[in-house]
Amino acid sequence: MEQLIDDVDKKIMQLLQHNARMPISQISKEVSMSQPSVKERMIKLEEKGVISGYTAKFHLPALNRGTTTFILLKTEHCQELVDFCMDRREVTDLFRISGEYNYLIKVQTATIEELEELQDSLIKLGPSKSHISMKNILEHRVLL
Amino acid sequence: MEQLIDDVDKKIMQLLQHNARMPISQISKEVSMSQPSVKERMIKLEEKGVISGYTAKFHLPALNRGTTTFILLKTEHCQELVDFCMDRREVTDLFRISGEYNYLIKVQTATIEELEELQDSLIKLGPSKSHISMKNILEHRVLL
Amino acid sequence: MEQLIDDVDKKIMQLLQHNARMPISQISKEVSMSQPSVKERMIKLEEKGVISGYTAKFHLPALNRGTTTFILLKTEHCQELVDFCMDRREVTDLFRISGEYNYLIKVQTATIEELEELQDSLIKLGPSKSHISMKNILEHRVLL
Amino acid sequence: MEQLIDDVDKKIMQLLQHNARMPISQISKEVSMSQPSVKERMIKLEEKGVISGYTAKFHLPALNRGTTTFILLKTEHCQELVDFCMDRREVTDLFRISGEYNYLIKVQTATIEELEELQDSLIKLGPSKSHISMKNILEHRVLL
Amino acid sequence: MEQLIDDVDKKIMQLLQHNARMPISQISKEVSMSQPSVKERMIKLEEKGVISGYTAKFHLPALNRGTTTFILLKTEHCQELVDFCMDRREVTDLFRISGEYNYLIKVQTATIEELEELQDSLIKLGPSKSHISMKNILEHRVLL
Amino acid sequence: MEQLIDDVDKKIMQLLQHNARMPISQISKEVSMSQPSVKERMIKLEEKGVISGYTAKFHLPALNRGTTTFILLKTEHCQELVDFCMDRREVTDLFRISGEYNYLIKVQTATIEELEELQDSLIKLGPSKSHISMKNILEHRVLL
Amino acid sequence: MEQLIDDVDKKIMQLLQHNARMPISQISKEVSMSQPSVKERMIKLEEKGVISGYTAKFHLPALNRGTTTFILLKTEHCQELVDFCMDRREVTDLFRISGEYNYLIKVQTATIEELEELQDSLIKLGPSKSHISMKNILEHRVLL
Amino acid sequence: MEQLIDDVDKKIMQLLQHNARMPISQISKEVSMSQPSVKERMIKLEEKGVISGYTAKFHLPALNRGTTTFILLKTEHCQELVDFCMDRREVTDLFRISGEYNYLIKVQTATIEELEELQDSLIKLGPSKSHISMKNILEHRVLL
Repeated sequence: MEQLIDDVDKKIMQLLQHNARMPISQISKEVSMSQPSVKERMIKLEEKGVISGYTAKFHLPALNRGTTTFILLKTEHCQELVDFCMDRREVTDLFRISGEYNYLIKVQTATIEELEELQDSLIKLGPSKSHISMKNILEHRVLL
Repeated sequence: MEQLIDDVDKKIMQLLQHNARMPISQISKEVSMSQPSVKERMIKLEEKGVISGYTAKFHLPALNRGTTTFILLKTEHCQELVDFCMDRREVTDLFRISGEYNYLIKVQTATIEELEELQDSLIKLGPSKSHISMKNILEHRVLL
Repeated sequence: MEQLIDDVDKKIMQLLQHNARMPISQISKEVSMSQPSVKERMIKLEEKGVISGYTAKFHLPALNRGTTTFILLKTEHCQELVDFCMDRREVTDLFRISGEYNYLIKVQTATIEELEELQDSLIKLGPSKSHISMKNILEHRVLL
Repeated sequence: MEQLIDDVDKKIMQLLQHNARMPISQISKEVSMSQPSVKERMIKLEEKGVISGYTAKFHLPALNRGTTTFILLKTEHCQELVDFCMDRREVTDLFRISGEYNYLIKVQTATIEELEELQDSLIKLGPSKSHISMKNILEHRVLL
Repeated sequence: MEQLIDDVDKKIMQLLQHNARMPISQISKEVSMSQPSVKERMIKLEEKGVISGYTAKFHLPALNRGTTTFILLKTEHCQELVDFCMDRREVTDLFRISGEYNYLIKVQTATIEELEELQDSLIKLGPSKSHISMKNILEHRVLL
Repeated sequence: MEQLIDDVDKKIMQLLQHNARMPISQISKEVSMSQPSVKERMIKLEEKGVISGYTAKFHLPALNRGTTTFILLKTEHCQELVDFCMDRREVTDLFRISGEYNYLIKVQTATIEELEELQDSLIKLGPSKSHISMKNILEHRVLL
Repeated sequence: MEQLIDDVDKKIMQLLQHNARMPISQISKEVSMSQPSVKERMIKLEEKGVISGYTAKFHLPALNRGTTTFILLKTEHCQELVDFCMDRREVTDLFRISGEYNYLIKVQTATIEELEELQDSLIKLGPSKSHISMKNILEHRVLL
Repeated sequence: MEQLIDDVDKKIMQLLQHNARMPISQISKEVSMSQPSVKERMIKLEEKGVISGYTAKFHLPALNRGTTTFILLKTEHCQELVDFCMDRREVTDLFRISGEYNYLIKVQTATIEELEELQDSLIKLGPSKSHISMKNILEHRVLL
């Protein structure tokens, strides 16, 4: 399902990746192309599904969720786990994975003490293993 | 490091999280507040570091990177690993973690075959363990 | 239980391994032996149980079963597992093994997403561990 | 890459799976179709790559290779391992896999004592884990 | 929550760490400071919570508890485990930890045989793993 | 090597365990025994090695060492590890243990970020596994 | 509990270890000591419990129990396991051990296929891990 | 390789298993058979290899080797390990095994402290895992 993206598309994408609120007028200057053409290209990238949206990024420590932990979980209660994760604001990511555990959960808590409460809730769903992040080196990076 | 964020701030943040390109005029209507006040609040949220930026979201399968894999790696060659990850476009996330392995790497490849090539490059850095995602249920979600 | 197989037997076996539909006339030429002798030797090899049959080989991706996964499973419900495997067309191999897990299951699915459904069915039987094949280098090879 | 296979194709495939040496005349009777049509369908299945060949099946205990063992191996020396496996008649299958180990090797030896010698040869390539089969319940089964 | 501790404070702390029953008169001499000043500093260190108390150290082999073992435990019954540990004189330390197991318990028994009885009591709470200490190299050391 | 300790001894030990600086006059009142007798018993307990000393207890968070982590380490370099631990103020406990890892190290750091630096120093000594404490429930407790 | 054993005692013990049916007359010659003295020394070694008995050694393959397997088992049902092992002639050794599993069982079966039946009986007692011996290099050796 | 052993043979074997020094006259009475016949049967059992010898049993704690430990070891240096085990009086058993580790070693030391010295010697041969026995429930039992 590879998309045909030319160099101008890529340049526009990089500008929006860096600042999604950049006005079309500025993008137009940066890529040396008329504003209607830029607009048209953006709509095409959205329609083709290459660009799936624009979002604000939040600094999680500022939201009191600065401690990152990965929990690997082995459970028979798949739907229950998914429902639990949907409801908890600490959970930011959830993956069904191959290997010894069947789920990988990424959680953001204020402290490692707060993590204990979350793990207590998970215990009844099955055995788990937690890895606390000591340093978030790269996150959500998409190299274009 | 908790921030004082009131309900209007939260509403503005949710609107921008949903669509980072929403014009201030529309946000103004949604939160029933004058445009200069909205603007001022946005600037405050940015200055306090609650909002750390605005970005375009890309659909990775459309970029030929639709297969998600988590690699746990135990290495003595920390700097070499960080440099390697920085350079490879397949790598989107990198964490220094507690536990048996010291790094968690998130990679996006076109196929599981392509993953083999990446793992071959990692082998010389130390023992690793890979978990291929069968379903990405939640990604980068921040509940406000 | 070693069988006495001479060089001509081995040559015949190799020809049939390469092409089980090879006519006796052609085998006869290849091994420089009369057709009745070839026929007799083939019958002997079948009777002694060295040759246990002739089969068509199917290209599994063409049957929408191109993703190979090995599942190690630890279960108390041995008969239930065997019955389950017998019924599922994704399962091609099943072994009772020594070690930490008591069964090794080889499955062929269309995609890694389809694998999830199969694993959900296995979860109630006990803890398991899956290894997805990134490259099938050798399969069912018998060096003669 | 799904193939269009109708019920007659499937019936022919099943007959050949059961006995790859079945004459076209007999297949013709079984599926109630003229011999040339049967022949044509077989050729089509071969051309489309659904049928990838015909082979003789050997009873491995009769070849003094009746003990089945699965070896999981973690190695940095990928090419060396592949070369080793290619050369050893005990090795019947080799897969590059996800997870903690990077290769799964299926070997057939005369006895568990003979297995020791093979494992000694593998030791220098990296840590491994062996699972001896106590019962081969299903092997190479393709349900059509 | 770092405390401002000057060199004299540190010297007093070291003296008390070495011998908590040292009279103020002696401390006064050692740090070349008047007794009322020493007293005042000790009270300040106690009030600031730097010094949390003074205790006698017991030689555990003399109390028939000379064998040190660490037990890692994975349990769903958190409160039950905490209650159990509180009541058992063999248990000296208990931590809620990240990783595969959720508790680390330090126990002191007379012999390794006595350890068996304790582990039998823990078995119903969940899977555990014990590490017997062959040599206690450092214990409760606080370098000032 | 059990010691004969009577109820009065035990009472004295408990008083000193609670407050090692308690004057003999007060202990004398609490156990209803003359001061010289109390003194004599204390000397006997010290001579028999039941009481091995008196120490001040420090509140580690106040010393900027409030994060407790247990590191299991497998090393060939035993002396080097012991020397390393002796020198580092983060290390409070060190045990030579049975099981898969040969050392258990207890460390106290200011934060989980600071832990990273310590682990980097340990990496060259061999593979390790860290468990961060989310709650220190019991520490150094001796029930008399 | 060390015993005082002199060189003559040791020589007698070695002779009996090599052949427990050696007549006293022959031992007497080998150690150049009178028969009554040899007899007296043997009685003393038996009374002190150094020699705990004399037994015939059986060649297990000749008893159709030539395959040695070690099973590590984690169970809550300790008494049930001990009873099971007492009754089964395949079980020759049973130990309560430290570590992840709580029992180590040594079994002797005719073949690896027969092992399967034994493991099926153990499954309901808890998770286990089996190691099949490929070569018994040393057994029950006591170097004097 | 099953042997034909009748009930009288078995009875004789049991008597010798219980007391290898039992005189033929007493065995003769117990099995109600003439002494020459008993003698002949014993010789036959020895010639057929069912009885492989007679040995004295030693009480290991009396030899200052009362602590039993099982060490699982993964090594590339097979010959070096075998030589090491041959020379060390602490080692009583050695097996080449399937699974994650390639050797299982049974050792008898005076104390767990003495075990440390042995493990230090093994460290250079490869990673190992030790299980200390808390109770030897069954040892070398052969049920006839």
